[in-house]
Amino acid sequence: MKAAIMGYGVVGSGVGNILLKNADIIAEKLGESIEIKYVLDLRDFPGDVLEDKLTKRFEDILEDSEVKLVCEAMGGTKPAYDFTKRLLEAGKHVVSSNKELVATYGYELLGAAKAHGVNYLFEAAVGGGVPILRPLWQCLAANHIEKFYGILNGTTNFILTKMYNEDMPFDEALALAQKLGYAEKDPTADIAGADVCRKTCILASISFGKHIDPDQVQTQGIQDINIRDVSYAKANGYEIKLLGYCRKLDSGKIDAIVSPFFVPKGNQIATVSDVFNGIVVVGDMVDEVFFYGRGAGSMPTASACVADLIDCAMHDKARKNFGWGARDAGFVENHSACQGSYFVRGEGDIHAVKAAMGDVTFLSLQGAPLNEVAFITQTETEGDLDRKLAGIPDFHISAKIRVLV
Amino acid sequence: MKAAIMGYGVVGSGVGNILLKNADIIAEKLGESIEIKYVLDLRDFPGDVLEDKLTKRFEDILEDSEVKLVCEAMGGTKPAYDFTKRLLEAGKHVVSSNKELVATYGYELLGAAKAHGVNYLFEAAVGGGVPILRPLWQCLAANHIEKFYGILNGTTNFILTKMYNEDMPFDEALALAQKLGYAEKDPTADIAGADVCRKTCILASISFGKHIDPDQVQTQGIQDINIRDVSYAKANGYEIKLLGYCRKLDSGKIDAIVSPFFVPKGNQIATVSDVFNGIVVVGDMVDEVFFYGRGAGSMPTASACVADLIDCAMHDKARKNFGWGARDAGFVENHSACQGSYFVRGEGDIHAVKAAMGDVTFLSLQGAPLNEVAFITQTETEGDLDRKLAGIPDFHISAKIRVLV
Repeated sequence: MKAAIMGYGVVGSGVGNILLKNADIIAEKLGESIEIKYVLDLRDFPGDVLEDKLTKRFEDILEDSEVKLVCEAMGGTKPAYDFTKRLLEAGKHVVSSNKELVATYGYELLGAAKAHGVNYLFEAAVGGGVPILRPLWQCLAANHIEKFYGILNGTTNFILTKMYNEDMPFDEALALAQKLGYAEKDPTADIAGADVCRKTCILASISFGKHIDPDQVQTQGIQDINIRDVSYAKANGYEIKLLGYCRKLDSGKIDAIVSPFFVPKGNQIATVSDVFNGIVVVGDMVDEVFFYGRGAGSMPTASACVADLIDCAMHDKARKNFGWGARDAGFVENHSACQGSYFVRGEGDIHAVKAAMGDVTFLSLQGAPLNEVAFITQTETEGDLDRKLAGIPDFHISAKIRVLV
Repeated sequence: MKAAIMGYGVVGSGVGNILLKNADIIAEKLGESIEIKYVLDLRDFPGDVLEDKLTKRFEDILEDSEVKLVCEAMGGTKPAYDFTKRLLEAGKHVVSSNKELVATYGYELLGAAKAHGVNYLFEAAVGGGVPILRPLWQCLAANHIEKFYGILNGTTNFILTKMYNEDMPFDEALALAQKLGYAEKDPTADIAGADVCRKTCILASISFGKHIDPDQVQTQGIQDINIRDVSYAKANGYEIKLLGYCRKLDSGKIDAIVSPFFVPKGNQIATVSDVFNGIVVVGDMVDEVFFYGRGAGSMPTASACVADLIDCAMHDKARKNFGWGARDAGFVENHSACQGSYFVRGEGDIHAVKAAMGDVTFLSLQGAPLNEVAFITQTETEGDLDRKLAGIPDFHISAKIRVLV
């Protein structure tokens, strides 16, 4: 079967590589080979092993009826959205690693795929090489998903691991991540949580059946995490992790958030360090399951793309589409109305804190200033918490971080 | 679509339960409902919610053309093998939680399914509720699997966790597991490793493409693990786990073993405690991925069975069968010819050990008798190791346990 790769960067070149290098196992699984007919990129790659497949014209792919499979690894929504839609409408299967595109236009593109009897698969868009979307959709199909939370961005997890294990300040850890090639020159999408937000939206859309847009999910990155908060976490049995978190509420709505969390040791998520990703899913029948692996990188991500290509080729015309419903503006609850527990650090008088906050767990840290007060709250809404905190006389808040419960 | 359940024990009743309780989500995913028409069991279940579906006649299911889906949760090979084969030949999809049947007759039954255009799926047979077979087959389809190792039996992992965390002797931990319902009255299949062996065979058959029979895999249980060895592990940064382990050798053959292992902390497998299961798979493109969850229990196991039923119903007539090749007697290498590292404990003179063994890492344990010598070997074949050990003058071996490297 003939395939095309759109975007010959880190992921796209990995896909090319795997299709060539592991052609034996692919042909064995599939009963036929997947042959690359085109590679679309505006750049030149002189001397590249796929140089003779390169084209700068999207129409070469679109108009070639021999091409049944397309891997979109361009990133961004323009022109990826337009290209993907036209390919699906032309009856070609499309697989993608593009989380921004899926998080924004997934509902529409899945609809186009269904209408034209083809597949739109994107296992690589969440968790890179970690199998998560297919297990979530297929293996947990008999479950109502109750919640999931995951470490979905390797760059920020690397930075947090350095801060935690080596007491390295944020700026230094970021600089090291950039030096090692884990973080972009402009690391904003990673650091500020936008990348995690997109992946959280995709997981939430599959888990809860309605399209969740990135603008519906309150998102906070790791840029404000202070090394002092890391020290408190370490001294009191917690890790600090940037999580995409989502759960079903009794009301039927969902609580979705991207934010740093204090994670108690003993939770599987606490074992995920460096650039690795990990996702916990809780279903009403299966209880807790956990998936772990390399969430980024050329080969792991491409491994997921090629698996999707194989699935499309294997079930050409026959695979039951998966999908989710349209956006529902009221489906995501206002996060400040949702119950949660928080780590709070500030300066003030511990007696005043006690009087205002009621039952909280005070944390200690050797060498902390005498007027520093840190504690973990009972479960309550963020709205209620903020009102109580505002009522503590002469208390200056330095940090407020969610706690995974 | 009409379904039947064969065997109304722990798993079968869970399947019935989920099909009733989560009918909404199943119908939503599938576009139609899965309706239980028969439950086959020789016992009576007066007052049970599915009492009116009970039958003692297999032929009721076999001969009813309305029944398209059958869940086999009988266990054992007789009469499960005969029943499954006849159902597949009659054009019915069969899903199974029966690891003994799949490990023994998987190749044959998959062939029967293929020949009659139906599916034979058994996600529940390995890892209970943990998604592992489908991710291994589909999500890692672009990879040559290099190795896998897993904690595949909750009973033995519970016992080892008690021995490790609470210094509980083996007999006491086993008695506790029995009291809590985690271990059978006759716990032999769990304790001696036969259950892990069957699951290892299924994983190996999928990973490496040839049917691996339980009699091809050297199997050792946990009954001989001494609390002293547990103490050495704890004092030197290791866990002790019963693993199913399999890797591809450079020769093209595989090394497969079921055995207790010293597992270095830091490995994801070391984080799996109590009755949980966890499996690490290493692919040449994706590197290491890890799956974790409840490996047994009514609802988690049934969750996997029902997911298979949904998959069969969703792709009735269209799903591409998966399978593996026939048994190849020479495919599994003699384990004693495979490289490995070992923990050895014995009584003798440390200087004699040093002289005979060359480069080994000696382990210390506070309070150990002066003539006790414990060490971890370099990587070598078990055959070579045994020859060297036999050559140490006056050295009495008390324990030899594999080390995960």
